[in-house]
Amino acid sequence: MDDSVKGCIRVKFLILVVQQNFTSSHLMVQTPKNIAIIGSGLVGSLLAIYLRKQGHSITVFDRRPDIRTVEFSGRSINLAMSNRGWRSLRKVGLEETIKEIAIPMDKRAMHVVDKPMYFQSYGKEGEAIWSISRGILNRKMIDLAEQAGTVFQFNEKVWDVNLPEAKIYTGESEKSEWKEYEFDMIFGCDGAFSRVRHKMQRRSRFDYSQDFIDVGYKELTIPPNADGTHKLDKNSFHIWPRGNFMLIALPNLDGSFTCTLFLPFEGEVSFDNITTEKEAKQFFKTYFPNVRKEIEDLTGDFFRNPTSAMVTMKCYPWTYWNKVALVGDSAHAIVPFYGQGMNAGFEDIFVLNEQIEKFGDDWDAIFEHYQKLRKPNADAIAELSYRNFVEMSSKTADPKFLLQKKIEKRFTERHPEKWIPVYSRVTFSDRPYSEALEIGDRQEAIMKNIMQTPNIEENWDSLEVEEQILSYL
Amino acid sequence: MDDSVKGCIRVKFLILVVQQNFTSSHLMVQTPKNIAIIGSGLVGSLLAIYLRKQGHSITVFDRRPDIRTVEFSGRSINLAMSNRGWRSLRKVGLEETIKEIAIPMDKRAMHVVDKPMYFQSYGKEGEAIWSISRGILNRKMIDLAEQAGTVFQFNEKVWDVNLPEAKIYTGESEKSEWKEYEFDMIFGCDGAFSRVRHKMQRRSRFDYSQDFIDVGYKELTIPPNADGTHKLDKNSFHIWPRGNFMLIALPNLDGSFTCTLFLPFEGEVSFDNITTEKEAKQFFKTYFPNVRKEIEDLTGDFFRNPTSAMVTMKCYPWTYWNKVALVGDSAHAIVPFYGQGMNAGFEDIFVLNEQIEKFGDDWDAIFEHYQKLRKPNADAIAELSYRNFVEMSSKTADPKFLLQKKIEKRFTERHPEKWIPVYSRVTFSDRPYSEALEIGDRQEAIMKNIMQTPNIEENWDSLEVEEQILSYL
Repeated sequence: MDDSVKGCIRVKFLILVVQQNFTSSHLMVQTPKNIAIIGSGLVGSLLAIYLRKQGHSITVFDRRPDIRTVEFSGRSINLAMSNRGWRSLRKVGLEETIKEIAIPMDKRAMHVVDKPMYFQSYGKEGEAIWSISRGILNRKMIDLAEQAGTVFQFNEKVWDVNLPEAKIYTGESEKSEWKEYEFDMIFGCDGAFSRVRHKMQRRSRFDYSQDFIDVGYKELTIPPNADGTHKLDKNSFHIWPRGNFMLIALPNLDGSFTCTLFLPFEGEVSFDNITTEKEAKQFFKTYFPNVRKEIEDLTGDFFRNPTSAMVTMKCYPWTYWNKVALVGDSAHAIVPFYGQGMNAGFEDIFVLNEQIEKFGDDWDAIFEHYQKLRKPNADAIAELSYRNFVEMSSKTADPKFLLQKKIEKRFTERHPEKWIPVYSRVTFSDRPYSEALEIGDRQEAIMKNIMQTPNIEENWDSLEVEEQILSYL
Repeated sequence: MDDSVKGCIRVKFLILVVQQNFTSSHLMVQTPKNIAIIGSGLVGSLLAIYLRKQGHSITVFDRRPDIRTVEFSGRSINLAMSNRGWRSLRKVGLEETIKEIAIPMDKRAMHVVDKPMYFQSYGKEGEAIWSISRGILNRKMIDLAEQAGTVFQFNEKVWDVNLPEAKIYTGESEKSEWKEYEFDMIFGCDGAFSRVRHKMQRRSRFDYSQDFIDVGYKELTIPPNADGTHKLDKNSFHIWPRGNFMLIALPNLDGSFTCTLFLPFEGEVSFDNITTEKEAKQFFKTYFPNVRKEIEDLTGDFFRNPTSAMVTMKCYPWTYWNKVALVGDSAHAIVPFYGQGMNAGFEDIFVLNEQIEKFGDDWDAIFEHYQKLRKPNADAIAELSYRNFVEMSSKTADPKFLLQKKIEKRFTERHPEKWIPVYSRVTFSDRPYSEALEIGDRQEAIMKNIMQTPNIEENWDSLEVEEQILSYL
């Protein structure tokens, strides 16, 4: 970039700043606080980076060892970073840094039975979701948070929290001697089974629910070719749908793919019924014959890696006075079928930060607005994610459902401004999740009517159907 | 009873036993087990009585002192025992004993604004619900359980449970020295905030929810007249409905009434806005002018007694192997607006006992059938109770709703076999709650159609409307 262009940009930037100060008179500066973050996962480390930018002292506690010093656990699903995640990273200048460890996937690669593999693009030209290994991203985020001046205390287990006084108690076990720490504020970023929330949960008038689905998952690996290249198309999200179970594969930088097998816990074809090497091999031979040869150590992976459960967790309130707040999975854990868990957690931080910029030192207002703004959106993405699970497990074989999707797709192509699919609203937009859910419901109601059209199977691509949809909008 | 009658009864009894052995070949006898029950409330003590009858050794633990030795807490709502409760007591020969401390209420006494008080009978001639003081009943039940050979250990706090080994850990505090007890089996009867369930709850694939309503309640008392008689009709359930809040009063044996004020926590007319004696007096003067003078120590009661919250709690599974089972509120806490909390808990025990009689020593089968049979019914009464809350808070002022109720009532009078109201199905029947909910939904759908009839306000009592309803059945 030559200097004259840089100059231009600088001038533009100044104008923007002036405008901002003009229109919103208070881009508030905060009094530095002494803050504890419980949990050094993705949300905990990004929140640390945000709060360091505001000038606060940050200590992050984690009951586990430093993930940078240990092997990954073999129980993760690769992440698909999309627009909301990127926006949250961009705000603190990290988008490009993280893109270096991510691989864009602009399409699904569908591996259905008795058909050649085919592609379905995710969105418009240039729209993609990005595959990132959870472990690699987490290590990187901790590095970045540390560089920003965050103090990490690993292997320190929080057992109790004094909510009104923002004190935490750590120790070897629940019954051992405990160490007391007092902070100005505590953020619970300790995941779906949050200890911080656990304390809030026993209070009166705290709403809470956890609902497990009857499908579990297991991590498997497709190693790279000998020359380090990928065995499958690397810019695709690979799916092998099989009715009420499926396999997916997301690319890694090292040429490998992280695969996830989603399978019911119980029933005819289920984790319960695959207990021997022979049964595991037979299962893959029957349902995934072409993948089997790519997964080098199939039965090794299968029996070494745990079978994990998936839960939708909702709760409210998310905050306690101006002392404690839940962020990410600790406030709203969702099933992974929309690829939005991390994106939603990162967006929490983005929205929290907007409240910080708006309300400055008024942490009561910050927390109150944060939870009120985020709760309906967390509920919406939970609902959308659960519906995607139901859709994938029971509807993908239904010809009526597939026809409906085909009609919607055609209509979107013809009228891209009039019919933005819910998937795009969730994945490539930063409008509220609750809006995506609401508009999606309206679209669904329209399509229900359309599907009643006589001979829709023959007329689906007709002008009448198109005009019919237009008339409903 | 003279001896010849006794003889008769004995013979009849023998015949019954023979018949029973004839028809159901296995009225199983159980091997005595060493069983712990956590919680000495109504459900815990009745379960102890049932299990003693089966020959088991029973120890009941309670973290609180013996209720027989302390004052009541001033936070209870009087109980309304109905058919399901009585059936469960009858099975172990206690119906008559408990009726001695109960007062039948065969009608609602409605105290609406600007109208003289009027009655609504609950059911048919002879049908009633029975008012019992929770404290008095609980003391009696503990006496009876003790007489049956149950060991009670009061003031012993359970902090942890080893589920697979049926061990419990008690002690002064969570951090103090703990005492370990090992049993063959543990029953968690420790209420909505059960410690036993708490342990199950942290396991994977345990579904759980707690939802608080935004209305709280407070206990108040109408003392007896100087001569010990009741100040209001003693065989009525008194209600003062006031839109989104209400007062109720249930009679006690000593001539007093236990009143409960249900009021939103927040909002214009709410607990939040009654903080001074003056405000409390003004509130009663405005909304309950005729009651105010009956409640002797209104402001004393108001500020001495706590404001309590109400929760719907659902979970699943209710059992762990053949080792641990939840019974009553610990498995399914409901809001009190159908008066079914205790009745549902007692029915759990009745159904559990049916499984015991069916499966004998096969506790795996007993627990599995118990939870599968009870779960849908617990969900149904939770839903019905919540709906009653919504109905009472938002619909009682709606003339359309009142008209619909009037039409249903008239139809029931004319066709008592064709239209049993949901209230009767819940209160005066022992058919499953889930059936009541399902039939209630069907009735509601029919009434929705009926309410669309032109000029229904004028024609509601016509032959056409009656025939219309008949045509839907």
